[in-house]
Amino acid sequence: MMEKIKKIGVMTSGGDSPGMNAAIRAVVRTCSYHEIECIGIYHGYQGMISGDFIDLNARSVKGIINKGGTFLKSARSKEFMTKEGRQKAYNNLKAANIDALVTIGGDGTFTGAIVFNKEFGFPVIGIPGTIDNDIAGTSHTLGYDTALNTVVDAIDKIRDTASSHDRLFFIEVMGRDAGHIALNAGVGAGAEEILIPEENLGLERLLESLNRSKQSGKASSIVIVAEGDKSGKNVFELKDYVEKNMPEYDVRVSVLGHLQRGGSPSCFDRVLASRMGVKAVETLLDGKSNYMVGLLNDQITLTPLEQAIKGQSKIDKELIRVSDIMSV
Amino acid sequence: MMEKIKKIGVMTSGGDSPGMNAAIRAVVRTCSYHEIECIGIYHGYQGMISGDFIDLNARSVKGIINKGGTFLKSARSKEFMTKEGRQKAYNNLKAANIDALVTIGGDGTFTGAIVFNKEFGFPVIGIPGTIDNDIAGTSHTLGYDTALNTVVDAIDKIRDTASSHDRLFFIEVMGRDAGHIALNAGVGAGAEEILIPEENLGLERLLESLNRSKQSGKASSIVIVAEGDKSGKNVFELKDYVEKNMPEYDVRVSVLGHLQRGGSPSCFDRVLASRMGVKAVETLLDGKSNYMVGLLNDQITLTPLEQAIKGQSKIDKELIRVSDIMSV
Amino acid sequence: MMEKIKKIGVMTSGGDSPGMNAAIRAVVRTCSYHEIECIGIYHGYQGMISGDFIDLNARSVKGIINKGGTFLKSARSKEFMTKEGRQKAYNNLKAANIDALVTIGGDGTFTGAIVFNKEFGFPVIGIPGTIDNDIAGTSHTLGYDTALNTVVDAIDKIRDTASSHDRLFFIEVMGRDAGHIALNAGVGAGAEEILIPEENLGLERLLESLNRSKQSGKASSIVIVAEGDKSGKNVFELKDYVEKNMPEYDVRVSVLGHLQRGGSPSCFDRVLASRMGVKAVETLLDGKSNYMVGLLNDQITLTPLEQAIKGQSKIDKELIRVSDIMSV
Amino acid sequence: MMEKIKKIGVMTSGGDSPGMNAAIRAVVRTCSYHEIECIGIYHGYQGMISGDFIDLNARSVKGIINKGGTFLKSARSKEFMTKEGRQKAYNNLKAANIDALVTIGGDGTFTGAIVFNKEFGFPVIGIPGTIDNDIAGTSHTLGYDTALNTVVDAIDKIRDTASSHDRLFFIEVMGRDAGHIALNAGVGAGAEEILIPEENLGLERLLESLNRSKQSGKASSIVIVAEGDKSGKNVFELKDYVEKNMPEYDVRVSVLGHLQRGGSPSCFDRVLASRMGVKAVETLLDGKSNYMVGLLNDQITLTPLEQAIKGQSKIDKELIRVSDIMSV
Repeated sequence: MMEKIKKIGVMTSGGDSPGMNAAIRAVVRTCSYHEIECIGIYHGYQGMISGDFIDLNARSVKGIINKGGTFLKSARSKEFMTKEGRQKAYNNLKAANIDALVTIGGDGTFTGAIVFNKEFGFPVIGIPGTIDNDIAGTSHTLGYDTALNTVVDAIDKIRDTASSHDRLFFIEVMGRDAGHIALNAGVGAGAEEILIPEENLGLERLLESLNRSKQSGKASSIVIVAEGDKSGKNVFELKDYVEKNMPEYDVRVSVLGHLQRGGSPSCFDRVLASRMGVKAVETLLDGKSNYMVGLLNDQITLTPLEQAIKGQSKIDKELIRVSDIMSV
Repeated sequence: MMEKIKKIGVMTSGGDSPGMNAAIRAVVRTCSYHEIECIGIYHGYQGMISGDFIDLNARSVKGIINKGGTFLKSARSKEFMTKEGRQKAYNNLKAANIDALVTIGGDGTFTGAIVFNKEFGFPVIGIPGTIDNDIAGTSHTLGYDTALNTVVDAIDKIRDTASSHDRLFFIEVMGRDAGHIALNAGVGAGAEEILIPEENLGLERLLESLNRSKQSGKASSIVIVAEGDKSGKNVFELKDYVEKNMPEYDVRVSVLGHLQRGGSPSCFDRVLASRMGVKAVETLLDGKSNYMVGLLNDQITLTPLEQAIKGQSKIDKELIRVSDIMSV
Repeated sequence: MMEKIKKIGVMTSGGDSPGMNAAIRAVVRTCSYHEIECIGIYHGYQGMISGDFIDLNARSVKGIINKGGTFLKSARSKEFMTKEGRQKAYNNLKAANIDALVTIGGDGTFTGAIVFNKEFGFPVIGIPGTIDNDIAGTSHTLGYDTALNTVVDAIDKIRDTASSHDRLFFIEVMGRDAGHIALNAGVGAGAEEILIPEENLGLERLLESLNRSKQSGKASSIVIVAEGDKSGKNVFELKDYVEKNMPEYDVRVSVLGHLQRGGSPSCFDRVLASRMGVKAVETLLDGKSNYMVGLLNDQITLTPLEQAIKGQSKIDKELIRVSDIMSV
Repeated sequence: MMEKIKKIGVMTSGGDSPGMNAAIRAVVRTCSYHEIECIGIYHGYQGMISGDFIDLNARSVKGIINKGGTFLKSARSKEFMTKEGRQKAYNNLKAANIDALVTIGGDGTFTGAIVFNKEFGFPVIGIPGTIDNDIAGTSHTLGYDTALNTVVDAIDKIRDTASSHDRLFFIEVMGRDAGHIALNAGVGAGAEEILIPEENLGLERLLESLNRSKQSGKASSIVIVAEGDKSGKNVFELKDYVEKNMPEYDVRVSVLGHLQRGGSPSCFDRVLASRMGVKAVETLLDGKSNYMVGLLNDQITLTPLEQAIKGQSKIDKELIRVSDIMSV
């Protein structure tokens, strides 16, 4: 049996997402509530290796619940991929009397946590923090809801121009492996077509669909393209392709880019972060390890980390149908 | 067996909420997709009585998915509470060849729909549209997610002043019978205390809690009060009570009021509205009636209207505990 | 002649306003640029008396340009109104080798600065920070532009409900002595009537105007009321008065309250704060004192503090006419 | 002498900008106030040629003051560059009894207006609507203030990621010929460097500046690049150049693109649009023509159109100095 946990380390790793600060706050305050100590680890696994730690108490995390990014900063660490690097990290944690780890991030973050736990038996709990929503075992990752609102807000603005000028816009949104952002923000913004990695619509069907739009009286159109779309063409090539085949269209491209990751988290993400932070700490205090905290059927649940990194939350097929109906 | 439905009427009733326009759009476009007609009814049940109808097609609802309020307008109708009024409404629907009704609103709206259906056997489907989230059979009503973001954004602003001046703020939010907004927005905004109708915290515990806050080093505090709080005091009386008992506090009050109902819907509410609108129409086309479309466990489901108006979605007790931990 | 200034103190006083943090940042960085030291004084004049100081350098003010409120906090100080209090403050400044003061606030703040300067010959420069825009010698006070956007955004939300329900709304906005917010936000939000302290419209003209609105086909209306309106009735009494005289109207009230003071400053306020901060420090370095930095004809200018507190920026009469034309 | 004007046409042309709808509304309502008629012309000059007109009255423009884009739509017209095209346009205006024209747009729009006036003696007044603020005779074009807030909001979001990952970001903003957006939004967002068309900073000075930033302890940096920057490299080439010369930097690029043109106008732009619309109509009613309405020293003024298209509002040199001081 594990010894009683008296000090927990918390860190963020991988791409930042809105809600990470809220999750750190929740971890820190839950430690405080249960009268154990909490240490922040800067720069993810790299900070574990360099011993870049800071004592945190309930007051240190005031005023951050509404801030985007992560005040503990995030980084990729090649050194942590080596046995030697992880040994240094372990030594630093032991030297600081840290008994367990809450790690906030995505796939890569959890893979590191699993390896670290295997090698040193170090208790770890993961919190899914990424805007891509591409983690199995949770219906929502931290930051995903905020990113959807950010994307929809940006598309609303672009539509002002699209409809003022009767233009067709291709808008690229984040999502290398998963079309969650594209599909949901696309439906939310009333896009005419949505190209996602999970489905190869085919270029001909795109042309058909745009033709149908024209004929149905739509003067302007928005097509959302996920980064990882499998049409074989990037968003600029799509523009060229459509302009060649439908010269009547005045086509423009917008790549939303990094602004999708930032911003003050939505209420949903703040509440989710709070719930997940509490559960992460209390799971460690219960003597459990190697789980990811997730949201399933509106309940906070635990999924083995191994399982979380294997799968990937599935796209909602029914929502694809809704999208088709909406662009009638 | 019901005859094949060829024309559907859609209306909004009761307090408006963000996402109502998106739901109307979804109803109209799903009708268009299934090649049936759609009629908009202005001013809720009152418009049914006065025959205030408009033909709607897929293009009539363009550019409204991101607009707050309801372009079909809403109203309360005393006349619809009389048999005579309902008879007029029925006659108007028949005269316009409307075969079925999608009604978007809350408790009162559904009660009207049930009575109407009982009297005339008229097929009805309800979509829950209210910011209060107080309907059984759905985890989220239309507009609730948007309202949470609006409230949290307002509290974030007020906190700027609270923390600049080391003040205590009582902020009243909507929720006469249900504390969903207060509890979730309170956790999301990092409130120190949250007073909701479902729990009587007691005034003494409030003082204790504020005292603890002071002692833990918090210079400013936010207390969220739901309209329907059962402490026996309204928000201004609470201010006086605390000022009398804790004269060291500089207390202010803010009543957020009607701005909580408005604004462009969040991505979540737009997607939910789209999914609900599709389901509402297709349920009618399937020959079913007297159901409310809802979201349960992230799935679109049907709940008998009778059941929807009886119950009320329960407050999340675990979230009350999370709130307590967060204000450690 | 004054000795060369080597250390400047900066503080905020009175009601907080968006842009105060940006102004502090500008003061600190301008000191750094000119290689002199900068000290932050917490809690306004009260912190001068209690010696609540902090060393600030260019890095201490990173990440605050976009934050509402003031991280140096603000307070009213009764003690500073006494000779004894001011003597303590002076002693503390001297003990900390502070040679000059930049004070950010409104009327009351500047009055304190003038007295302090008179008594001790201590060099002071004022920066106008208040959302009310009621200071002579500047076309814009810090925070005013942000507050206008906040108010207009709130009214836009309320209008969703007003027009969904064909209601008349009375909305109270800040401005005890000056109608700048009411008039500009009223025109910006398309209000039908605007009641300001500078003009007594008269209750009968209000009724006439609302009658005209009704007759011209407006189903809903927004009336903006400045806190300091001279109609003799507060916003709730206005509601009662109109309901009594125009029973066909369904009237509601919204008091926007403290949220008007908060929020991330607009680009305009951030740029203005930066320009003002530079000018404030460089004016002190030029050996000048007792001026307020202001914006006149888009240029940064200096106005004697004495003059700034005597006058008050005039309401734009032409804009009242524009407002009347717009509500035709 | 011109005959009395009884009907005014209003149109938008060139790139859309927030505030155009508010300006159309102001033109329409001012016509209504002075009891003359108003006609909307769709699609700019192209709609004049095709006779694409709509009767507008005070109620037709309700609910648009807060909408981005232009409901009259905008377009470029090659045909209007021919004598024949302009003759058609003139014939259509005469056939519709339109006596004068208010045209909302930028340089190209005004050039068309001047030619049209010369050829047919047709009274025209211009309102400057473009986000670029590159028109002489006005300190602010319609949409410029809104665009600044949109850009600053986007950069705030990107900074969340930049500072979470200690990255350097190059952010491209609009402004082909004028650096107003880049300079003001850059100062507003606290950018470390700002590259504008009006000044060639030189690539070496950029490296020096970034080096200085690194040494002064800044872990992350934002460099704003106007589209029309004269460094000889586009934003992606700048990234490569810096990465080659400063390999310690993790550099990213973001091109903000079309979202800068859209969105609900700021209060400033709505008020400006209202004032300009009133002045445009009343100037025509005064029997004047060939002027642009502008804002100079906070006053609504008139500038001959010929002069407006010749010059270009100058960049504020002092603000470049402020920017340098702020990035100390």
